[in-house]
Amino acid sequence: MLKTIAWNGQSVELLDQTQLPSQTRYVPIENERQMWDAIHRLVVRGAPAIGIAAAFGVYLGVRRYPPADVADLHRKLDEVCAYLATSRPTAVNLFWALDRMKRIARHEGLHAPAEDAQAIARIKQRLLDEALAMIEEDNHVCRSIGQHGLDLLLSLNPQPRPGNPLNILTHCNAGGLATAQFGTALAPVYVGAQRGHTFQVYADETRPLLQGSRITAYELHANGIPVTVICDNMAAVVLSRRNVHAVLVGTDRVAANGDVANKIGTYGLAILARHFHVPFFVAAPTSSIDLSIATGAQIPIEYRDRREVACGLGCLTAPEGVEIYNPAFDVTPAGLVSAIITEKGVVQAPYEMSLRGLF
Amino acid sequence: MLKTIAWNGQSVELLDQTQLPSQTRYVPIENERQMWDAIHRLVVRGAPAIGIAAAFGVYLGVRRYPPADVADLHRKLDEVCAYLATSRPTAVNLFWALDRMKRIARHEGLHAPAEDAQAIARIKQRLLDEALAMIEEDNHVCRSIGQHGLDLLLSLNPQPRPGNPLNILTHCNAGGLATAQFGTALAPVYVGAQRGHTFQVYADETRPLLQGSRITAYELHANGIPVTVICDNMAAVVLSRRNVHAVLVGTDRVAANGDVANKIGTYGLAILARHFHVPFFVAAPTSSIDLSIATGAQIPIEYRDRREVACGLGCLTAPEGVEIYNPAFDVTPAGLVSAIITEKGVVQAPYEMSLRGLF
Repeated sequence: MLKTIAWNGQSVELLDQTQLPSQTRYVPIENERQMWDAIHRLVVRGAPAIGIAAAFGVYLGVRRYPPADVADLHRKLDEVCAYLATSRPTAVNLFWALDRMKRIARHEGLHAPAEDAQAIARIKQRLLDEALAMIEEDNHVCRSIGQHGLDLLLSLNPQPRPGNPLNILTHCNAGGLATAQFGTALAPVYVGAQRGHTFQVYADETRPLLQGSRITAYELHANGIPVTVICDNMAAVVLSRRNVHAVLVGTDRVAANGDVANKIGTYGLAILARHFHVPFFVAAPTSSIDLSIATGAQIPIEYRDRREVACGLGCLTAPEGVEIYNPAFDVTPAGLVSAIITEKGVVQAPYEMSLRGLF
Repeated sequence: MLKTIAWNGQSVELLDQTQLPSQTRYVPIENERQMWDAIHRLVVRGAPAIGIAAAFGVYLGVRRYPPADVADLHRKLDEVCAYLATSRPTAVNLFWALDRMKRIARHEGLHAPAEDAQAIARIKQRLLDEALAMIEEDNHVCRSIGQHGLDLLLSLNPQPRPGNPLNILTHCNAGGLATAQFGTALAPVYVGAQRGHTFQVYADETRPLLQGSRITAYELHANGIPVTVICDNMAAVVLSRRNVHAVLVGTDRVAANGDVANKIGTYGLAILARHFHVPFFVAAPTSSIDLSIATGAQIPIEYRDRREVACGLGCLTAPEGVEIYNPAFDVTPAGLVSAIITEKGVVQAPYEMSLRGLF
């Protein structure tokens, strides 16, 4: 399987997802400014991968900084974290990762002499180790989500096989390329396929940036899973045939009441799933669950550049001068969510209780 | 207002809608093969405009043919009609227009001497006159739909004005460029704007061919109507804000029970409108209503080339080798349709009765 993010000892290598599916190209990231740009431009995307990338960004931002003392290193660290926090304001994993890196540095530096060069080197090393550990943890979390999700899917079609596969519809990319390697929404597919189960995945292309057709289809195809790309507006027809077992999506952020922020189009898809009585599942590592916000109404929505819609694919597709509305996310009300699959297990409504029970 | 189709005395001029919104270019159509190609490639699209184009195609196909006698002209005419019928198999207006041209020729030739050169010339002239009459009729039909539709919209927001416009959401293009000039779904907007009412139109971009962003946004903007382009998957968010008064779409074919075939994505939009309690209106000239088919299940769905989805915008957006599903139309069940607006008035459920009452 392709790796999304890797550390080569000198720099971070990111698979440039803006170039998929035409080119498989890794870009070296040497400093925090390049990492900010990579997160902002969606070279790296997907909540878990953004978190890991940001953690490396923190390390890259301080590794060559010569601080006057430990306090100065912490000051620099805060500055780098504040800077990286602006790269993608809706990604809760970004803040989670930055907080974690700051906490690690504080803890490591707690009893260090103020001007001890060794202490400073140790803190820097500790930041790198933490970013590397996050890759390992991510792999563990994704595999656990895969196991729990697979159990759920097999309850809908206990013996998938050629001719009667588990039919899944997904939106955007919450696959391996949204994490370090295994994915969240697609983890049940990968875990299931490894155990010999048969899948057929419908991938919404996911306008405007086409993460579904460019990335989800790319990685599923590369990993030998049959995939059919559809335009977002074809989901109703696919669901109306009554052979899709589940809609399975990822999330950028889940509120305490179970409202789910995810790529624009998720809300509409959830309404369609409800209309056709198809279960609507959200794969969410607990790091994406934000109990500090009560409902989705408090989740800030990022509005992106009009050019993504009007000429995102290299040619002008809307006339100059017209308004373009381009929200990057929407919030699916908890009432439309059949279940949330986490690495700690599957939870269902009432989400106020069940989500809290995970922590 | 731009004209979609015009006769210059020698050839038909079609506005090349595959080039919008970048270029406003008219292509001359000299014969039936060019017309077949123009209809097939969507140079001209929209049910009413296709009908008119096909009628001209019939004339172009026989005008220079030197028949042995009147019977031979009819034979040639049948051949041209059968050929043009294959250009766009889902467009009922296409068949309606071809039948009408054959009927006219039969009627004109009924009592003509078999080898009378004057009779042959008269039949050819009659075919051209009929195609020209269809443009005039189309303008009349569209203006009538506009009047009836406007009455319906004003019942939802009686005094639209700046700050409180009539907010409409539309899909694909059922505007002036889908007809000779005034449009079907957009006719109420144009008629209303001429009377000083204020509108705001949300236009689904309508993947894969982007008729909404390329054509609907282009013509509304050109005609001074505020328009906001959204990706298809943003409709749920727009409707969730509860300020859209109606969804207004066109149709390629309405079955006797009120099922509506229209551009892919319409079905999903109708489900969303129902979810948010927004009226879902279909503008349908009676020529689009096909009482010979009982339900939408009998409407053949055209599947189009994978490249429209995978590289329709000039660059590869899905990897080679994956499946692509590309139905051009879907069928919205009558139960989701709040009203059908025809040139003879507005009809509502039960459609079996109300549609029949129009004829």
